Amino acid sequence: MFLVNRRGEQILGQPSYRSLADLPQPPELVAIVVRAAGFEAAVDESLRAGARAIVAITAGLGEKDAAGLALQRAMADRVRAAGAVLVGPNCLGIADTGTDLDLTWDRFRPGSAGLISQSGNLGLELAQLGDDAGLGFSRFISVGNQADVDAAECLRALIDHPPTRAIAVYVEDFVDGREFASIAESAAAAGKPVVLLTIGATPASARVAQSHTGALVSESIAVDAACRASGMYRVETPQQMIDLLQLLLAPHQPAGRRVAIAGDGGGHVALAADRLIARGLLVEPFSDRLSASLAGILPPTATTRNPVDIAGAGEEDVFNFERVVRLMAQSGEADALVLTGYFGGYSEQSEDYRRLELEVAGAMTRSAHDAGRFLMVHSMYPTSRTSQQLRQDGVPVYGDIDEAALALGRRADRIADPPLGVPPLPPATHPPAPFATDYFGARQLLAEAGIPFAEARPAESEHAALAAATAIGYPVVLKALGATHKSDTGGVRLGISGEAPLKDAFREMQARLRPASFSVEKEATLASGIELLIGVKRDRRFGPISLVGLGGISAELIHDLAVALAPITVEQAVALIRSLRGAQLLVGYRGRPRLDIEAAARALSALSQLAAARPELAEVEINPLLVLERGVLTLDARLIRQSTDPETR
Amino acid sequence: MFLVNRRGEQILGQPSYRSLADLPQPPELVAIVVRAAGFEAAVDESLRAGARAIVAITAGLGEKDAAGLALQRAMADRVRAAGAVLVGPNCLGIADTGTDLDLTWDRFRPGSAGLISQSGNLGLELAQLGDDAGLGFSRFISVGNQADVDAAECLRALIDHPPTRAIAVYVEDFVDGREFASIAESAAAAGKPVVLLTIGATPASARVAQSHTGALVSESIAVDAACRASGMYRVETPQQMIDLLQLLLAPHQPAGRRVAIAGDGGGHVALAADRLIARGLLVEPFSDRLSASLAGILPPTATTRNPVDIAGAGEEDVFNFERVVRLMAQSGEADALVLTGYFGGYSEQSEDYRRLELEVAGAMTRSAHDAGRFLMVHSMYPTSRTSQQLRQDGVPVYGDIDEAALALGRRADRIADPPLGVPPLPPATHPPAPFATDYFGARQLLAEAGIPFAEARPAESEHAALAAATAIGYPVVLKALGATHKSDTGGVRLGISGEAPLKDAFREMQARLRPASFSVEKEATLASGIELLIGVKRDRRFGPISLVGLGGISAELIHDLAVALAPITVEQAVALIRSLRGAQLLVGYRGRPRLDIEAAARALSALSQLAAARPELAEVEINPLLVLERGVLTLDARLIRQSTDPETR
Repeated sequence: MFLVNRRGEQILGQPSYRSLADLPQPPELVAIVVRAAGFEAAVDESLRAGARAIVAITAGLGEKDAAGLALQRAMADRVRAAGAVLVGPNCLGIADTGTDLDLTWDRFRPGSAGLISQSGNLGLELAQLGDDAGLGFSRFISVGNQADVDAAECLRALIDHPPTRAIAVYVEDFVDGREFASIAESAAAAGKPVVLLTIGATPASARVAQSHTGALVSESIAVDAACRASGMYRVETPQQMIDLLQLLLAPHQPAGRRVAIAGDGGGHVALAADRLIARGLLVEPFSDRLSASLAGILPPTATTRNPVDIAGAGEEDVFNFERVVRLMAQSGEADALVLTGYFGGYSEQSEDYRRLELEVAGAMTRSAHDAGRFLMVHSMYPTSRTSQQLRQDGVPVYGDIDEAALALGRRADRIADPPLGVPPLPPATHPPAPFATDYFGARQLLAEAGIPFAEARPAESEHAALAAATAIGYPVVLKALGATHKSDTGGVRLGISGEAPLKDAFREMQARLRPASFSVEKEATLASGIELLIGVKRDRRFGPISLVGLGGISAELIHDLAVALAPITVEQAVALIRSLRGAQLLVGYRGRPRLDIEAAARALSALSQLAAARPELAEVEINPLLVLERGVLTLDARLIRQSTDPETR
Repeated sequence: MFLVNRRGEQILGQPSYRSLADLPQPPELVAIVVRAAGFEAAVDESLRAGARAIVAITAGLGEKDAAGLALQRAMADRVRAAGAVLVGPNCLGIADTGTDLDLTWDRFRPGSAGLISQSGNLGLELAQLGDDAGLGFSRFISVGNQADVDAAECLRALIDHPPTRAIAVYVEDFVDGREFASIAESAAAAGKPVVLLTIGATPASARVAQSHTGALVSESIAVDAACRASGMYRVETPQQMIDLLQLLLAPHQPAGRRVAIAGDGGGHVALAADRLIARGLLVEPFSDRLSASLAGILPPTATTRNPVDIAGAGEEDVFNFERVVRLMAQSGEADALVLTGYFGGYSEQSEDYRRLELEVAGAMTRSAHDAGRFLMVHSMYPTSRTSQQLRQDGVPVYGDIDEAALALGRRADRIADPPLGVPPLPPATHPPAPFATDYFGARQLLAEAGIPFAEARPAESEHAALAAATAIGYPVVLKALGATHKSDTGGVRLGISGEAPLKDAFREMQARLRPASFSVEKEATLASGIELLIGVKRDRRFGPISLVGLGGISAELIHDLAVALAPITVEQAVALIRSLRGAQLLVGYRGRPRLDIEAAARALSALSQLAAARPELAEVEINPLLVLERGVLTLDARLIRQSTDPETR
């Protein structure tokens, strides 16, 4: 390693060179830490000196202003043209714990997790939280403004990096989101799960990201869709990232939702049951047989049905912990074993206890793993000697039972909803076939794509409205066209049963709303149907996103949306609809008829194909889509055409 | 302190006496740690020796079997008769950090939080998590089986204990829940907020609690109702307990939901914004004036609109942290200030940095507190010297931004929904006026209490049904009486428009369901109404609980319930209904008419009064209660009479 400093001074006691040209041999990699004003010169000098890689820690470029953005782009081009690569600028360095490469602020504990972070400080926080949890890193790359090398490229590189067994990503701007999701899918397929932390779920954080690294953040539903497609795990905080990585790196993975809980103390096991169930796990009573086996080794005050409170048996004989874990592991009655409470703390009481507890911990780990079972521990002593040994042996240890429950719940959710796959986007038609975005234009476009509508006719006069109603047959619905949310402004009148009320409605709406035009439509019978909302929304980074949820007036009250990267097949659309909480209402809930989920799925899939083929569609919302016992019917739809935006596809 | 041991051996190097009678002076307090078989003798001996208080650590009594329960009850009576008190049995001791009294396993850091725990190990976990967060305890009481002294009594004692400024409670069995809630209300009124951790949210944990301390756990909604009434804060884990206590013990409390966020690094402030907003806080853009003031002291890459990313200005001059906090505090634009990210870590880099950062932390704390503002810090270095100093100065510090956000969100929720007060229960009528629990009996009871019903007539024959329909007027509804969930089994037919369809419906239901009887009812127009569910449910410990939520088929899909200890006034019922997420639907949502919330509240209040006056009502559920533009209408109701259970009132 050589230090370069214009004044040639000693730096931290080491000699420095006045320029890169003065080095005794060409540098493989140059880390640039000059001020922004000297950035261009430093890059040029690096390339001249023969550098193959540049790590640009320099800030104040693309995240500052348009001039900085232009400069960083130009430099990235220059670097690539020279056959080199550039990380940053505005980054915090890189590290490879398998070699001596360590160009970062803090030390990274060596381990199996690859870490890609667009924020330097969050990278450091992850390193630190990982260290607290005994979790180490194979490589760390702070990608900063991603002028050249971006997070996706780093992700791809980690797939082929044997020491890396799971990948942690903090990213604000996904650049080519589809490409990113595809690589994440490949990583998962290669047995390297990707855990993602991102921001932009709120306008407040999007505001900052834009300014921070010039990032274009994605809407939260787009990120969710990318996770659903690729199998990425999404977390919300650095701590959750570390919690989940611990779990994913364990040698035996949980196989489903059924959890067996044991501990010495009723409070702890009861609390664990409440939290695990709250996070979507199942804590089902054990069989008589397993319960009797447990009762055979435990005191009469113990509970043996799951959760298991060994009720002081651990203090009597610490090997009882192992016996209980072994019986639970061998029973096959649980997909995951959770030990909670005091265990892990004996090693802190005395040397004798330490020796004993370490022995028990080792035996317990073997018993679980020999049976092929995932074991996790919540311990009041998460940093004790025993907890450290457990982690080394592949047993995740948590200091907070809810963190453990959340991580396990995420894993179980993924098993229940396997990745849908990242669909390619069809080539766009150029020039796109034109269409009108007004109400009837939208109807025509959607109907041609195969989405069923209630019969409707345009009417600009009262006379035309009456004629339309006669042709369609009463009862009809009258809609005033023009307003975005028609039902807000009283622009939709339902249940018009004849000429007189139609005239009244027409005149009243005409006078109040002065709409450009009207639509007269056949009234659908709502009685046995359920209203869904289906739609597509184009994200700047991930392209078209399909979404489905409960519709009608419930849509905005109930956050029960399922999302996917468009396009999706009919089969995938069925899976999406079935993953809604409200899906119960469609499958014959409490004596109701079973509704036509397949028809709803066909409409959802058709809409996703349309959006994928037509990049000029920014957003389509069909709400409500009435799902009947046979078929579906679009009762209202709106469509937004893409505004011209060079960042958008 | 004296040790007593039957063999008179030395214990841990200290001499012991063979019996309590041998002591040189009467003991004030005796801690009993003998086995269950020796418990009775040890208590008797203690009383004879003149003990005023007994702490019974002995286990294997009330939590084991009926004989143990009988014995512990008898001993508790004997102790009280002697004018003494008993803590436990099956407890882990007590401690008073203001004196030398320390009869527990671990050491408690001295401080301002009183701790009452029914589980010994959870008490220890709280002690340890508190210690990690620099939070100390004034007193610790492990109440165990609560044979004599219960959690409520301890709570009352802590109100009058000056060193105690906030109270942490872990309890499984509330014994007299109303009394407990009343005392918690008094504690809050005395400026000592109570934070509650309990179990029993799931059948799995209820199973354990019963066995663990013989506890009768309460349903989660009853605990929520007690919190809503008394102002207790409910948490879900020991960590959340410590997080919230830190906040509640701060000298200046947040005044509302508006949060100002600052940090050095866009990732951290963006993540903080996302988490705080997810937890119900508001992160609104600052005024031009405040933003300009901030821009005046920060580099051009900083964001100054909220959240504030000082973008390297902290590394340039660490005093910038103080300047930013001061400007935000003095602006009056936020109810709480949150600093997030690296700050707290400089003190770990070098002696010089430590000195500087401690100075800045002190100045920052003064600036916030002088302006009367609550300040909290999320730091990557939550145990650093600076973080310790911040806590000593009354600034809560968290290692996880989501923990900070959750604690702040809970405080803000409490400000938005102040306690309703714990209502007394009226004396029950003895003997209770009789009523029939069949459908028409329930209708009559509820109608007499002031709850409006659609007109209905019983009909046992087709002939009677036709006569009833004629008297009521078509369209009518036909209900088969007897089944619990009538709509599940197709026992309700809506929209019967005339004689012929009524006959068809009657015959079909008669053949299929063979009901004991029918009800013919006036059909209500659902068009403009919204269906609510209102009800009361009697908890074994808290008595009658009122509940209200969205009704109809949505009720079980949408967990949007508001609960209160019954009885409630009409005004309180209005507040309850308005606190529903679905309340939007009632107040004129998106062009819909405003519905009669007051009438719904009158029905809810009337039902709560009825349940309070009639302990023999176990459960009443009115679903749906149709809320119209004028008035409400009960469309279906069911009622369960209390089974005879000595534990129940």
